[in-house]
Amino acid sequence: MKPLDAIIVGGGVIGSSIAYYMSARGMKVILLERDRVGSQASSAAAGMLAAQAEIHEAGPMFDLARASRGLFPQLATDLSELTGIDIGLKRKGLLRVAVTDADVAEIQRTLAFQKTAGEQAEWLSTEQVRQREPSISSEIRGAMFVGEDSQVDAPELCSAFAHAAAVLGAQIKEFTEVKSLLLDQGRISGVMTSEGTLYSDRVIIASGTWSGPLLAQARLTCPIYPVKGECFSVLSHTPLIQSTIFSHGCYLVPKKGGRIVIGATAQAHCYDRKVSLGGISKLLEASKHLLPGIIEAEWEKAWSGLRPQTLDGLPYLGEHPHWKGLYAATGHYRNGILLSPMTGKLVADWAEGKTEKDLSLDSYRVDRHENVHLKKEGVPS
Amino acid sequence: MKPLDAIIVGGGVIGSSIAYYMSARGMKVILLERDRVGSQASSAAAGMLAAQAEIHEAGPMFDLARASRGLFPQLATDLSELTGIDIGLKRKGLLRVAVTDADVAEIQRTLAFQKTAGEQAEWLSTEQVRQREPSISSEIRGAMFVGEDSQVDAPELCSAFAHAAAVLGAQIKEFTEVKSLLLDQGRISGVMTSEGTLYSDRVIIASGTWSGPLLAQARLTCPIYPVKGECFSVLSHTPLIQSTIFSHGCYLVPKKGGRIVIGATAQAHCYDRKVSLGGISKLLEASKHLLPGIIEAEWEKAWSGLRPQTLDGLPYLGEHPHWKGLYAATGHYRNGILLSPMTGKLVADWAEGKTEKDLSLDSYRVDRHENVHLKKEGVPS
Amino acid sequence: MKPLDAIIVGGGVIGSSIAYYMSARGMKVILLERDRVGSQASSAAAGMLAAQAEIHEAGPMFDLARASRGLFPQLATDLSELTGIDIGLKRKGLLRVAVTDADVAEIQRTLAFQKTAGEQAEWLSTEQVRQREPSISSEIRGAMFVGEDSQVDAPELCSAFAHAAAVLGAQIKEFTEVKSLLLDQGRISGVMTSEGTLYSDRVIIASGTWSGPLLAQARLTCPIYPVKGECFSVLSHTPLIQSTIFSHGCYLVPKKGGRIVIGATAQAHCYDRKVSLGGISKLLEASKHLLPGIIEAEWEKAWSGLRPQTLDGLPYLGEHPHWKGLYAATGHYRNGILLSPMTGKLVADWAEGKTEKDLSLDSYRVDRHENVHLKKEGVPS
Amino acid sequence: MKPLDAIIVGGGVIGSSIAYYMSARGMKVILLERDRVGSQASSAAAGMLAAQAEIHEAGPMFDLARASRGLFPQLATDLSELTGIDIGLKRKGLLRVAVTDADVAEIQRTLAFQKTAGEQAEWLSTEQVRQREPSISSEIRGAMFVGEDSQVDAPELCSAFAHAAAVLGAQIKEFTEVKSLLLDQGRISGVMTSEGTLYSDRVIIASGTWSGPLLAQARLTCPIYPVKGECFSVLSHTPLIQSTIFSHGCYLVPKKGGRIVIGATAQAHCYDRKVSLGGISKLLEASKHLLPGIIEAEWEKAWSGLRPQTLDGLPYLGEHPHWKGLYAATGHYRNGILLSPMTGKLVADWAEGKTEKDLSLDSYRVDRHENVHLKKEGVPS
Repeated sequence: MKPLDAIIVGGGVIGSSIAYYMSARGMKVILLERDRVGSQASSAAAGMLAAQAEIHEAGPMFDLARASRGLFPQLATDLSELTGIDIGLKRKGLLRVAVTDADVAEIQRTLAFQKTAGEQAEWLSTEQVRQREPSISSEIRGAMFVGEDSQVDAPELCSAFAHAAAVLGAQIKEFTEVKSLLLDQGRISGVMTSEGTLYSDRVIIASGTWSGPLLAQARLTCPIYPVKGECFSVLSHTPLIQSTIFSHGCYLVPKKGGRIVIGATAQAHCYDRKVSLGGISKLLEASKHLLPGIIEAEWEKAWSGLRPQTLDGLPYLGEHPHWKGLYAATGHYRNGILLSPMTGKLVADWAEGKTEKDLSLDSYRVDRHENVHLKKEGVPS
Repeated sequence: MKPLDAIIVGGGVIGSSIAYYMSARGMKVILLERDRVGSQASSAAAGMLAAQAEIHEAGPMFDLARASRGLFPQLATDLSELTGIDIGLKRKGLLRVAVTDADVAEIQRTLAFQKTAGEQAEWLSTEQVRQREPSISSEIRGAMFVGEDSQVDAPELCSAFAHAAAVLGAQIKEFTEVKSLLLDQGRISGVMTSEGTLYSDRVIIASGTWSGPLLAQARLTCPIYPVKGECFSVLSHTPLIQSTIFSHGCYLVPKKGGRIVIGATAQAHCYDRKVSLGGISKLLEASKHLLPGIIEAEWEKAWSGLRPQTLDGLPYLGEHPHWKGLYAATGHYRNGILLSPMTGKLVADWAEGKTEKDLSLDSYRVDRHENVHLKKEGVPS
Repeated sequence: MKPLDAIIVGGGVIGSSIAYYMSARGMKVILLERDRVGSQASSAAAGMLAAQAEIHEAGPMFDLARASRGLFPQLATDLSELTGIDIGLKRKGLLRVAVTDADVAEIQRTLAFQKTAGEQAEWLSTEQVRQREPSISSEIRGAMFVGEDSQVDAPELCSAFAHAAAVLGAQIKEFTEVKSLLLDQGRISGVMTSEGTLYSDRVIIASGTWSGPLLAQARLTCPIYPVKGECFSVLSHTPLIQSTIFSHGCYLVPKKGGRIVIGATAQAHCYDRKVSLGGISKLLEASKHLLPGIIEAEWEKAWSGLRPQTLDGLPYLGEHPHWKGLYAATGHYRNGILLSPMTGKLVADWAEGKTEKDLSLDSYRVDRHENVHLKKEGVPS
Repeated sequence: MKPLDAIIVGGGVIGSSIAYYMSARGMKVILLERDRVGSQASSAAAGMLAAQAEIHEAGPMFDLARASRGLFPQLATDLSELTGIDIGLKRKGLLRVAVTDADVAEIQRTLAFQKTAGEQAEWLSTEQVRQREPSISSEIRGAMFVGEDSQVDAPELCSAFAHAAAVLGAQIKEFTEVKSLLLDQGRISGVMTSEGTLYSDRVIIASGTWSGPLLAQARLTCPIYPVKGECFSVLSHTPLIQSTIFSHGCYLVPKKGGRIVIGATAQAHCYDRKVSLGGISKLLEASKHLLPGIIEAEWEKAWSGLRPQTLDGLPYLGEHPHWKGLYAATGHYRNGILLSPMTGKLVADWAEGKTEKDLSLDSYRVDRHENVHLKKEGVPS
């Protein structure tokens, strides 16, 4: 039997994307997930592909985000053909709305940067905003419109990645927890799981919030902590908005069939996935302020997810400096959906010995938070 | 085969109670329900048995409510023995909380009446309220405490009535819609349903909001209209309140296992069971005002029910003046849970030719809203 | 305000399609639904567009089915653009599998007819079947393969029709029950509903199983009765089948994301939507027989729907012979999903005074079951 | 602040019972649960308290089971008073049904043992069985009736334990995973969790299937493996059975409100909680054989749970031989519900320095599977 080209630990959107891209290149992989595929943050996401709206300075994240956003159109077609699943890619733009004077100033800075960077974005007065979106409150102070910013249905994306991988031959193993890594002589050789030991000389840790302990076993300090985000959704036969509406502490994302997702709170260091009444109260107030007519919409449901945050806000992407074959692809915080295609592609590239020419990945190194060097006693000599 | 002693139309808490009381006396009945038993207002209710808290003058409703409340303790035991279902009868009292000066005055009037009527009730200062319920806001203006006011779990009560009836021999026929009444020669002889004709010389209309059209077939004008009530519930391992908290436009009912039901909005003439974001917003604001700590509780779910209201706020209880054997037991508005045992007992009494000595039912007559008399052409000569 | 061009009674796939096609042509319509859009048979359907597999003789149904099937590809694109909803149109063909000698003979007859009619279909030996679908039991006796037979996701189709109609200006009014028709002087002028009276000189009855009583008000005998169908679904990461597998009393329809729908029982004259253990038992046995490996799949859920059947198995499509403006579009039995686009288009055509040249609708006349003529007393002179 | 008397790891029925009994005696405890309280095997159980039906020889399990069963009546009252939750204790007996000759012989042996042990149990002929339970198949070969064997609602029991503990002052901390034990100088001093470190000189491991790795940290080999059990439930207004029906590979437990739970398959070493179609198929066949009329009942739902099994089938109950203050209370397999009160009581007794006089716990020692002694290097000197 052909040996495994890779063991992927974590069945969220990152792990599933890696499984898909590797399978698509003919590699034999297994995806291990402690619960069900997509049962955590990936399915809780609102699915904005906001590469521009939130970034106001040049840097590694801006490049990675734009590169990943560019992969979606082809991906939507490929995943639909393989699985029948429509990932809901929708390009109706995003309005980053100013509510206060401070907002206006901040958004103008972002706008200026976007233009410098050669991206399309424009400032709209309140009247212009309301011409485009008549239901928006007349009390806003204008908005930046980014026509290119699009969105997908996050649960469908994660599910489509995993099923496409399965169709292409990957094994999807749910309810399987990785207990420890097999590390020896400067290499990884596999993992021990709740259901036995699996061998491969390539292991990718893509467990989001739960990645820390496994990486710690390899003496790697990658502090990842959860930031709980609460959301709710409403339904309306009458279309209320066309574009995503984005403001301080609240966004409204129009979904198919008259659904609107309203998100999201942010509570750091909270593993508890309960939705609090206080969280709903905050989002409700903010959304009424932006879109007064939303109170007529029908309540659907509330949920939450734990976004994996890092100290500098950047994901960990790369190979362990000392244990060959052990990779991290985790800590994507609120950008997991947006960055998932590029992350999957990068990991597949590494497996084929390719490197990205256009993207510097230095900022994402897994050992960037080590004090100086890895502690001597933890590494093979 | 023994003929049917009665056909009961409507499988809410009223129809189910009638089926139970009649079956318990050895009568053979069938309960017809358009959907499932308890699928409408009966399962949406918060289950307060607030015979005193909301009534501030002597009258038929006060007597009926007290008489019905008195039936619950024995009923809880009987239903549990027959079905294993615990209806959750809980006597931890009710606090009717004053928020404004006007509230204080109104509640004091209710209190004075209760005392005149020989009921237990007392005024508590804000400090006394907070001694009893430390989580209540310090900004309230005192409260009336009614120790006798109790509560049940409404869905369990409705379900227990129906199952107890089934155990005692009643036939429960769900997904069966009554199309028309068989009326001839001054009597009812049965009903036509979506699944055929059923015969009995006693038919009881207990269809809540949907009772009007059937009664209209018997030329009876019993205007019943829906008043939608929206609710939501939260969960908290730490007990937040012991008693029911009741104020203007908002009540909080503590349920088993750390659940609190928050209700209820009131929207007349609305058949639409959708929960609006605006409804949740109102209840959320009001509940935060009464119990600030509720924002820490976990969101559970939202729902609504259509309460069957009448022009004078009293239910219709009694036989048709001209079509013998046709009875109405409907229009209980927000008092369906509280009045269900007495309503069931009354209908069973009528079937046995008994009349209540202690209760005057004149105010509940089914023909009280006819202009003068029934129109001549509609009745048998 | 512009008057209503049409009132459509029934928010299943037929009523929703009519609302969509009429709205797309600029007509102002309202769709009335007793519960929620798509809450009955339309969402319970497996979504096979089996225009060929089940029809073995020329006739009106064959022509209508082929014409309707041909509308789906464009429709999928149009609905996706308007609503973002993907109706899941999938053309992976259908295998009508023979299990007994009698099956072989019957299927060969169907095959011969299909070829005569100029349709693509071919006989496959058991080996050929298993080459295409390796998981199918080796004990089958061959199968007819129809490459053109496709499928859609039924709940998505119904939802997309209704939302597309709403986007195009139609009003979707849920939880609204039509009580009676306004008929006067040989015309319809509107309907009385639970929430008031609506006026239009065109009313289309599309209420499936519940159409009979309304049509009876117009003295039209259109006997429509429910045939309950029970289904269940399973999930499998590993793809089990590509095509729809169809046999006596059991079909298996592969859906997106590794889901398979297994249907369907048939119980006539049953309004009860409960799924019986016996129904699941029958389907489970039959599906194991066709696809032994299905026992490894994960149980998802069970459900049922009431298909509206007529005496001759054909829907009622057309205008009332005496009450002008009153139309029926109902009784589609198991073909509602397949026939919905053509039915919507036909009704929109009628509203524009067009008639189909290529389709004879005589077999679908609404008065074809009247004994000779409509009873004299029931019609305007 | 008062230090913690105990940290309880695992919020199933065992951990919750321990939290309750300790809190009831005034101890300050915290209950840590990785997901939600009762989210695993405890809520999946059918709730049989079958102390006699399955035990056919004297031994430690028989004594423990009888002692625990005896605690339920008082417990039901206490938990109801504290939480309002009815645990559904029902004493309608159990019929252990013989289907084959081998069954008859085996059951007769059990019966003989029960009588020797002074327990009530009797043999019933098929006719006698059917007199008691007329719906049972006439093809059975008689049954043993155990009048004393009772049942509870397992999810309610677990929930009531946890809420009662909370009412009595225990802290219930969900979504908190214990990463490691703090072991030093022959004592335990606390645990490290996903949300920080907690200190106490008493830690009880009650994590069922997931207990092994934590105990392994203390160099204790307590092999615990999951045995997946699949179940489903049906609903019937007409009562089908009164007593629990128990046979080879299938039991039917009548629950409140006309519900019947049918269980359970047994698949060892499976962490996957998916319900397979094959599992439902087996249970369905077996239940039809015992109770043919069950096919008329309504399908409700299917689920599964992972029972924590040990090598000798006995739970681990006791203190670590070397690390003082570290206790195990885990591995209860199919007896977790039955044994939960006694387990909670025992652990509370230990904390108070009491020992049971009437129960020998030697068979449950946590180090009974160590090869000879604990490996030297793993223990403090």
